[in-house]
Amino acid sequence: MTYELYYWDGIQGRGEFVRLALEDAGADYVDVTRVPGRGTGEMLKLMDSTDEAHVPFAPPFLRDGDQIVSHVANILLYLGPKLGLAAKDEASRWFANGLQLTITDFVAEVHDTHHPIATSKYYEEQKEEAKDRAFEFVTNRIPKFLGYFERVLAQNPEGSGHAVGSDTTYVDLSLFQVIEGLRYAFPKAMRHYEPQYPALLKLHGSVKARPNIAAYLASPRRLAFNENGIFRRYPELDIEP
Amino acid sequence: MTYELYYWDGIQGRGEFVRLALEDAGADYVDVTRVPGRGTGEMLKLMDSTDEAHVPFAPPFLRDGDQIVSHVANILLYLGPKLGLAAKDEASRWFANGLQLTITDFVAEVHDTHHPIATSKYYEEQKEEAKDRAFEFVTNRIPKFLGYFERVLAQNPEGSGHAVGSDTTYVDLSLFQVIEGLRYAFPKAMRHYEPQYPALLKLHGSVKARPNIAAYLASPRRLAFNENGIFRRYPELDIEP
Repeated sequence: MTYELYYWDGIQGRGEFVRLALEDAGADYVDVTRVPGRGTGEMLKLMDSTDEAHVPFAPPFLRDGDQIVSHVANILLYLGPKLGLAAKDEASRWFANGLQLTITDFVAEVHDTHHPIATSKYYEEQKEEAKDRAFEFVTNRIPKFLGYFERVLAQNPEGSGHAVGSDTTYVDLSLFQVIEGLRYAFPKAMRHYEPQYPALLKLHGSVKARPNIAAYLASPRRLAFNENGIFRRYPELDIEP
Repeated sequence: MTYELYYWDGIQGRGEFVRLALEDAGADYVDVTRVPGRGTGEMLKLMDSTDEAHVPFAPPFLRDGDQIVSHVANILLYLGPKLGLAAKDEASRWFANGLQLTITDFVAEVHDTHHPIATSKYYEEQKEEAKDRAFEFVTNRIPKFLGYFERVLAQNPEGSGHAVGSDTTYVDLSLFQVIEGLRYAFPKAMRHYEPQYPALLKLHGSVKARPNIAAYLASPRRLAFNENGIFRRYPELDIEP
């Protein structure tokens, strides 16, 4: 069965965390809104359905036959075992899901650096507040979150090469994407901070070198970061820590 | 085994979504930071641990023997089957987790109405921005989220009395808490909106009348809402829709 991923076309956004898992596993999937003849309309129709019992609030969501699963962490929890990207034992799976939810929170904070007041308004309408929020983000939130993930790697009893256990899980792939996104959006801040997080950077490098990930990153399926996504490069928000 | 819930003392906050499930099920649990002789120090010590493999990023987290589970939705996913508050079939459990994650996002937006710029600063230092963010929240976000939850109830093939299936799940308890919190923080806005969400209000009433919930709400274990929590009553943010 082909997995159907539904997400906004044209951006990496939150969908990218799911794509990385599907790509790493070489899974059979389609990005519905990018399929000629299907597109965003099909996604919106499903979201607006008045008889679908398990209607999703927002993209991304995954359809696997009759099963609809929404929210990144939920999708990855669902796909993890099927793609061979889940933690091995149950105790570690609860931990992995907690980590993924911390990543979710961090990504929401990244979004709010350019939209601190209203998602319904343009960045240009909230630039001043965005500068203040980005100051807080760069000064306090980046080190708080990255420092936590670095600790998680350092305290992994099975070695600092992975977030959970001794093998690659979807959490590792998501941490790679977090570093990629931060480097795009906050290059100055990241140059300052990176030396403090050696394990995280090593993990980023090892994920990037995984054959299926490397092939994906080099393919047209990997969209470039841009200023419609979650991670946006606005130089005025890339504050010197 | 006694469940140990770790959360900031003195507020309902995010911990309350877990408490409601534990209380409804009559589970054996302790609220660690409120136990004389234990307190917040014990929670912080665990969070600061340099050898705990499954260290949590932030409260709330739950300890069940050796298992630590963090993040509200993760804790409820873990506790659901143990407390008899999970959806019956697997397909519905994925949907329930998605709903709980939508509630998580909504609660984060409630928090940001009074802290749009910096969690490290006082509300008083971001009052102007809070007014703008609360305007967006009251005007667009309350109806978007409550409208979605109302649809979920209306489209439940087993009847609009529950979010998932034909029985009470932890999602119902959380929706009760969302309504309680919004009524506390945004009474004017809620008086305006409530008539639009009859199924949600009926669910709120039926949860409130559940014997264990009623007993809990009348007990000293249920703290009052206050201006240190997530749902805060600042009249200047309670905008007329």
